[in-house]
Amino acid sequence: MTGLVLFAHGARDARWREPFDRLLERVRSGHGAPVELAFLELMDPDLPAAAARLARVGATRIVVVPLFLGTGGHLRRDLPRLLELARATAGVPVAAAGAAGENDAVLDALASYCLRSAR
Amino acid sequence: MTGLVLFAHGARDARWREPFDRLLERVRSGHGAPVELAFLELMDPDLPAAAARLARVGATRIVVVPLFLGTGGHLRRDLPRLLELARATAGVPVAAAGAAGENDAVLDALASYCLRSAR
Repeated sequence: MTGLVLFAHGARDARWREPFDRLLERVRSGHGAPVELAFLELMDPDLPAAAARLARVGATRIVVVPLFLGTGGHLRRDLPRLLELARATAGVPVAAAGAAGENDAVLDALASYCLRSAR
Repeated sequence: MTGLVLFAHGARDARWREPFDRLLERVRSGHGAPVELAFLELMDPDLPAAAARLARVGATRIVVVPLFLGTGGHLRRDLPRLLELARATAGVPVAAAGAAGENDAVLDALASYCLRSAR
């Protein structure tokens, strides 16, 4: 069973996470296995804690999806370190997808939103 | 003529901006008027400079689209201040759309990407 971690940056303002909570609901309703949010900083849980939670409810493999638009230092330096910690904590394989913003369909949706905003 | 500013966070790593450059190309090809990227920090141009550039090439109104997933301090505190500066610099009306990540179609694309990543 593949557990999913939706990995976002985090922010001081609690209202920042509203779209991530909406996304979590959508992904949970579409994925036949457990899904958790995790945050790089300022919000809980962190990535190792979310991975451990997924392993506790039966995930035998975990995929982390970075909800970041670009691939900068957070994904190039911080994420590999957190993946190592998550593997140690969860005790199951933990892999990461690419940044969501690098995905063509996500870029298409962003482009459409920009174009609609100009009207 | 409505000019568009695609407003992103910025990062130290130049590779971070690759998807934003791809997005700029897509939006330019779909919008019949000038489009510029602008960054909150660490990358150039900033929002007032991008707005001034659009006004110089004939934009009579500017819409800023925040390429942010959530609405935290950057959009609640920093953006209003930058919009005021942009209005003063560009000399035309400057309005802002909501955070891209709050948009339903963008959330749908993100959810699909998360679900495909689990396979």
